[in-house]
Amino acid sequence: MSTRIGILGYGNLGRGVECAVRQNDDMELVAVFTRRNPESVSILTETAKVCNIADVEQWKDRIDVMIICGGSATDLPEQTPEYVKSFNVIDSFDTHAKIPEHFANVDAAAKAGGHIGIISVGWDPGMFSLNRLYANAILPEGKDYTFWGKGVSQGHSDAIRRIEGVKNAKQYTIPVDAALDAARSGRNPELTTREKHTRECFVVLEEGADAAKVEETIKTMPNYFADYDTTVHFISEEELLANHSGIPHGGFVLRSGVTGWEKENKHLIEYSLKLDSNPEFTASVLVAYARAAHRLAKEGQSGCKTVFDIAPAYLSAKSAEELRASML
Amino acid sequence: MSTRIGILGYGNLGRGVECAVRQNDDMELVAVFTRRNPESVSILTETAKVCNIADVEQWKDRIDVMIICGGSATDLPEQTPEYVKSFNVIDSFDTHAKIPEHFANVDAAAKAGGHIGIISVGWDPGMFSLNRLYANAILPEGKDYTFWGKGVSQGHSDAIRRIEGVKNAKQYTIPVDAALDAARSGRNPELTTREKHTRECFVVLEEGADAAKVEETIKTMPNYFADYDTTVHFISEEELLANHSGIPHGGFVLRSGVTGWEKENKHLIEYSLKLDSNPEFTASVLVAYARAAHRLAKEGQSGCKTVFDIAPAYLSAKSAEELRASML
Repeated sequence: MSTRIGILGYGNLGRGVECAVRQNDDMELVAVFTRRNPESVSILTETAKVCNIADVEQWKDRIDVMIICGGSATDLPEQTPEYVKSFNVIDSFDTHAKIPEHFANVDAAAKAGGHIGIISVGWDPGMFSLNRLYANAILPEGKDYTFWGKGVSQGHSDAIRRIEGVKNAKQYTIPVDAALDAARSGRNPELTTREKHTRECFVVLEEGADAAKVEETIKTMPNYFADYDTTVHFISEEELLANHSGIPHGGFVLRSGVTGWEKENKHLIEYSLKLDSNPEFTASVLVAYARAAHRLAKEGQSGCKTVFDIAPAYLSAKSAEELRASML
Repeated sequence: MSTRIGILGYGNLGRGVECAVRQNDDMELVAVFTRRNPESVSILTETAKVCNIADVEQWKDRIDVMIICGGSATDLPEQTPEYVKSFNVIDSFDTHAKIPEHFANVDAAAKAGGHIGIISVGWDPGMFSLNRLYANAILPEGKDYTFWGKGVSQGHSDAIRRIEGVKNAKQYTIPVDAALDAARSGRNPELTTREKHTRECFVVLEEGADAAKVEETIKTMPNYFADYDTTVHFISEEELLANHSGIPHGGFVLRSGVTGWEKENKHLIEYSLKLDSNPEFTASVLVAYARAAHRLAKEGQSGCKTVFDIAPAYLSAKSAEELRASML
């Protein structure tokens, strides 16, 4: 029997979930919930309904897992604890510092409702977190490195767009090759986020805007750019659309550690992602964990979980026997 | 309370486990079991005992997890089902084709004895298997690639040593850069094991041996070398000891896949290991899973498990709260 999926919120991530569900034969998208007028929202899956979020309770018995595709700043802290009362839910909450608080809220509501809520699913947090955990458990003496990119940072792109005279902009976060090499060297250097990354900006100006002033404003912007090696390119709107309309991302998680009685042997564990579409990849992770949520719920489990709490076999459509025979 | 570890078999892997236990504050090595005369075996841990394997039953209540460090060909198929009757056990059984049979044997014995047996722990099978599973669950449409090396293949080194006129030898398996690049390209080519690897041999001849004949015998050896691009270097025993006495290894697991309604976006997931000491790294994975075995046993679970069945949090000495706050 297939897992009946609901999508709550139909932006880039929601559309990514819709595409990912289609790639999994044991999954079925039954409904998309939106705050907009449902008639104004057209989805790709012919067999699924579009509904207003106000009607979500009517779907309690027709959805096995609800994938909540809101933003971490304001949506998810409200939505995930709210909807886990009625559904098994997955979210991609990515405000690292607030995860403990979010976990506690979702856990209490999930247990009260007898449902499973898996939070902070995606690649960071998500697959990168898993790789940090596995690598630290294997090599207790060592050093972790996380690099992001090359990829589009939505927050940094937005910050540029808010500058007067800027019509449109895309910002790429780029790992510094020399820093990556240093992390891989076994010398375990200290590397700040700034030393590990550069920032490249593609900016479309409003007519008559002062390019020099915009560039200065970007490069001196506190927190976002001031501490980084930042490059600004001014391009036409056509060029931005033609060459920078994708949402690629990726990155690297490394752990460099030692073993041996005298710590004489060095080891490097490296995990990396190169993604054409950040939201579609994140969505693909969400859907794999939706499969796990459904299975855990069928076992009678409830409460909040993270990727750390889920045995890998729960993510796969294959049986335990098939997995042992084909992938071990 | 710490996890009391026993080591059964004290070769390279057993010594690696001893070193790994020392790096984990919540672990304690209590005894090493050997088929040899215990008085002839000297270990590094002053507080641990060396015992004959015949006395192992006397340790039933003093060891939380026994790490079985025998070979996959003949030791583990006998030992793991035998000792899981009395202990929670971990092994590194790596004959991929026989894993289902080994699992069934260990599972039956583990359930009868009320213990946990985690089999096929290490890096391949082990961490590589986990990465294949996660990547396949996330990207159901794609292609897997596994590359081994650069590293020492014990089996191939032994095969060379058996040739008449060979005094000593080391064989390195080396991934082909062009094949790695092809796997990363997103074109998803078919690549055979032979296309992905070359073999480099360092050979010390017996006095008076015919080098040309030895080289010919190596390069035409069926299964081991005949199908590979093989290089043979003749060196002195001194050079072999000075430059080739380590047991490095490593490799790459990649999955190249697509997402999107029209499968228009490509993604690459890559995991790699670069290991100075194959046995010490394998041992470090075994010890992390020993922690998991102890916890599962304390929960009252029993039976055979693999890395697929163990939630990642069980591997870490940190609490769930600490993990969420520091690694998610």
